[in-house]
Amino acid sequence: MEGREEDVKVGANRYRERQPIGTAAQTQDVKDYTEPPPAPLFEPGELSSWSFYRAGIAEFVATFLFLYITVLTVMGVAKSRTKCSTVGIQGIAWAFGGMIFALVYCTAGISGGHINPAVTFGLLLARKLSLTRAVFYMIMQCLGAICGAGVVKAFQKSQYELLGGGANSVNTGYSKSSGLGAEIVGTFVLVYTVFSATDAKRNARDSHVPILAPLPIGFAVFLVHLATIPITGTGINPARSLGAALIYNKDQAWDDHWIFWVGPFIGAALAALYHQIVIRAIPFKSK
Amino acid sequence: MEGREEDVKVGANRYRERQPIGTAAQTQDVKDYTEPPPAPLFEPGELSSWSFYRAGIAEFVATFLFLYITVLTVMGVAKSRTKCSTVGIQGIAWAFGGMIFALVYCTAGISGGHINPAVTFGLLLARKLSLTRAVFYMIMQCLGAICGAGVVKAFQKSQYELLGGGANSVNTGYSKSSGLGAEIVGTFVLVYTVFSATDAKRNARDSHVPILAPLPIGFAVFLVHLATIPITGTGINPARSLGAALIYNKDQAWDDHWIFWVGPFIGAALAALYHQIVIRAIPFKSK
Amino acid sequence: MEGREEDVKVGANRYRERQPIGTAAQTQDVKDYTEPPPAPLFEPGELSSWSFYRAGIAEFVATFLFLYITVLTVMGVAKSRTKCSTVGIQGIAWAFGGMIFALVYCTAGISGGHINPAVTFGLLLARKLSLTRAVFYMIMQCLGAICGAGVVKAFQKSQYELLGGGANSVNTGYSKSSGLGAEIVGTFVLVYTVFSATDAKRNARDSHVPILAPLPIGFAVFLVHLATIPITGTGINPARSLGAALIYNKDQAWDDHWIFWVGPFIGAALAALYHQIVIRAIPFKSK
Amino acid sequence: MEGREEDVKVGANRYRERQPIGTAAQTQDVKDYTEPPPAPLFEPGELSSWSFYRAGIAEFVATFLFLYITVLTVMGVAKSRTKCSTVGIQGIAWAFGGMIFALVYCTAGISGGHINPAVTFGLLLARKLSLTRAVFYMIMQCLGAICGAGVVKAFQKSQYELLGGGANSVNTGYSKSSGLGAEIVGTFVLVYTVFSATDAKRNARDSHVPILAPLPIGFAVFLVHLATIPITGTGINPARSLGAALIYNKDQAWDDHWIFWVGPFIGAALAALYHQIVIRAIPFKSK
Repeated sequence: MEGREEDVKVGANRYRERQPIGTAAQTQDVKDYTEPPPAPLFEPGELSSWSFYRAGIAEFVATFLFLYITVLTVMGVAKSRTKCSTVGIQGIAWAFGGMIFALVYCTAGISGGHINPAVTFGLLLARKLSLTRAVFYMIMQCLGAICGAGVVKAFQKSQYELLGGGANSVNTGYSKSSGLGAEIVGTFVLVYTVFSATDAKRNARDSHVPILAPLPIGFAVFLVHLATIPITGTGINPARSLGAALIYNKDQAWDDHWIFWVGPFIGAALAALYHQIVIRAIPFKSK
Repeated sequence: MEGREEDVKVGANRYRERQPIGTAAQTQDVKDYTEPPPAPLFEPGELSSWSFYRAGIAEFVATFLFLYITVLTVMGVAKSRTKCSTVGIQGIAWAFGGMIFALVYCTAGISGGHINPAVTFGLLLARKLSLTRAVFYMIMQCLGAICGAGVVKAFQKSQYELLGGGANSVNTGYSKSSGLGAEIVGTFVLVYTVFSATDAKRNARDSHVPILAPLPIGFAVFLVHLATIPITGTGINPARSLGAALIYNKDQAWDDHWIFWVGPFIGAALAALYHQIVIRAIPFKSK
Repeated sequence: MEGREEDVKVGANRYRERQPIGTAAQTQDVKDYTEPPPAPLFEPGELSSWSFYRAGIAEFVATFLFLYITVLTVMGVAKSRTKCSTVGIQGIAWAFGGMIFALVYCTAGISGGHINPAVTFGLLLARKLSLTRAVFYMIMQCLGAICGAGVVKAFQKSQYELLGGGANSVNTGYSKSSGLGAEIVGTFVLVYTVFSATDAKRNARDSHVPILAPLPIGFAVFLVHLATIPITGTGINPARSLGAALIYNKDQAWDDHWIFWVGPFIGAALAALYHQIVIRAIPFKSK
Repeated sequence: MEGREEDVKVGANRYRERQPIGTAAQTQDVKDYTEPPPAPLFEPGELSSWSFYRAGIAEFVATFLFLYITVLTVMGVAKSRTKCSTVGIQGIAWAFGGMIFALVYCTAGISGGHINPAVTFGLLLARKLSLTRAVFYMIMQCLGAICGAGVVKAFQKSQYELLGGGANSVNTGYSKSSGLGAEIVGTFVLVYTVFSATDAKRNARDSHVPILAPLPIGFAVFLVHLATIPITGTGINPARSLGAALIYNKDQAWDDHWIFWVGPFIGAALAALYHQIVIRAIPFKSK
């Protein structure tokens, strides 16, 4: 009863500082949740489990649909001379963010709903899944992305090559380091939201957190696109960048390609560090 | 308690691979939910039940309102020379997706909230409703769609015929097979989201799933429209395509009309197969 | 437990037709909810209760904020020659729908969150509130709307009169009867969503219904605006139409003004009839 | 059971006036919730608690990300001659509102998710947090905002200075008092939504309130931007205005700067008064 009322003080600070001493976090930890143990790096049992392969298939299908819808939206906007008669740049941002919302919703219970190697990498650093699974997910995500972009190209081959194929690159007027910075902070926003939405401690206390989880994650992707489409076209997802680049396959798509792997991985690592060390203070806990 | 904490690990994989052997899915199935038995093809009792007819009326009214709002939005955008002074193509996508969100929300408890023969077909394949009910729903959906488009035409008859009446066809620059492909994958996205949102197994475990169900279903429709309006105007709903074509009733509306039945039905069947066989592995279960 | 699992079958039909005979609705009614008794027309006790006056104040403030934000948004779009450098017509639709979402959320627990005489009228017909309260609400809503539009005019008096002040009228190219029809169906969509969101029977069974209630109600308003802004500017709320017309106060605002009272009231009455008679079958119930 | 059914009557008035006498509010208060005691002005224990500093860091990071994404979005729109090829003014409004949604969601459990000195001020007036904490939050918010705008400037220094850097000022055609009024009412909308979403009394009764809390708060910010971007660029957040002004640092950014502190603080104070005195009637309660 008491605990339930606590759940709703969104606007105020949650910790009753009246019973302080030490960190409120540490004293409350014991009560209402247990941190799951870190996932082992290698887990042999996984490889003999159908749910492991099914999760990989779900990541493949989700990333396939993600690239298919988003690159097709980009093509539709790109091929019209006046953006007014298309869904516009804002429509592109909605396509990326909305697909992540819908797909995280659909695949969360099957694979965890990563659909993005940077998210997988961040969760691996926080030891939420095994290295075996992380590598398997990343491979399936990249394969799905390549197939998704491929189907879009198959619809209109000549147009696809003329219009850039949705591939990411640093736009003129911005330096490579600005592009890298945009990818780092953008991925930080996304992976920080993922960590916030899946934090076992907060979930145990805040009933409003898990119910909306896929929605803020999708919004984070939408918002980063609003801000950084003018800079890099917005990657923050190496599988998406690789799929579009490989199907487009022209020099300008490959020149900056490293940025769309290095940036997201640094951003995801920073978000994992921020969440695990500053927010959760995991290294400093006795237990 | 344990189970409740499990509900929230959106970002990580849900299955505790530490107690593996065989498929984690199969061992857990027994515990926390029971698959409802498949609906019989013919259920005589239905026909003497008021709720059966009420469900049909609800499908009629919902599809009527769906076509009314969406075709009216399309007309408003079409009749302005500069799309900037209208809600734009993005506004059309919102009209389709938003209406599905609102109408699924309103009719879910009355008829299941299909509002789309392709959704009914997919759920029939998964044996979630009887054949009698499926046929009755499809007829009511088509009648509702025709009436909805008819009211829009009655508002402005001359404009309606000039501006295409919101009827679907494959746009110039795209082949018939691209149009068919766009309808298949688009309907797959929608029906896959419907299956994910209504999966009895996941619903029993993930408390965040059912509460948001109408929202991701509506978003799926919105997203497919963002991507495929430039190709076919986006059908993914045979009742919507039939209603608009019948009220518009010109040759170009009928030439490609088969695509907007064959495509959605193939897409819905693929989504049903994917969900039932790959995700749920229903045929391989002993029980 | 059983009941909880039932809650989630959004895609399928909810009624177990296997135990049929008669209407499934009637047999289940008894079990899981009780219809609240109809509110009396006059309730003397209300007038001595602070919560009655507080509810009126909340309706006043909410309708004030509703007109303030929406008419200001309309003015911002109207005064720019190219709609591209504004939030656009779609932004106007978001302002109306979004404000209804936020305000229903904020005032639901205080006054029921009507913010619209047509909603109050529909709920009165369904006997959800007393006639005294309904009249009091409508007066407060109209006063709030007038004040809200007045503040916008005070910001920029000359512009306000040049640009129409957000007042509703039937646009050229549409007949009066089309305008009236658009108001009727538009209000039907809104009030039908309100009834669906507040149905005691469904709420008792579908846990996903009440949690999202303000969101689909807001979306319904947004969607009707997408469709009917080109026809009438979209009223579906007599207080909004009255407030804008009274502050604008030119002949063209008053010529069609009756449409924005008659239309919404007919639409609300039809939605109340549809919900109470077709969906709930209340007149035919023995109890 | 009874209580749960009550939770869902969104459309009707919540208070059973049939057992009236006095204020219904006062009689029900006793039953289902207890108002948390007012926070003390100075709480020495806070300063020795890690969660206090962590909350400050979380406010810093959230406000940093808020300014980074929003100012970058503003820059992207500003630098294009035709707004049609950008996310548009509506996209800017989404960036502000969407970031507040995502960040309140992410930081609600850590710091209460203020991200805005006006929100902190309003909650301080309602004695929801100590003065020490309020001052600490405001300082961290301002520092975060300055850093966030600074990173955007670092990406493109010359453009940033040409294009106004997202700094707030009263636009030509509007008087200072209109600008001040717009800030007051706009902040009222935001802080009123925050109070409604975090009201302990309503939360105890309305299960739909806390679950959606971050969403209507984000929408409130979005809606105010739709309406007042043409007037002041929309502040309603002194940290956001200070950060942009300090990094832009030209005379026109400082001339009106007082408006973006005085307006939001007045608006927040009015919202706190309205909620505590009119809605909750706290001063008149015996307990």
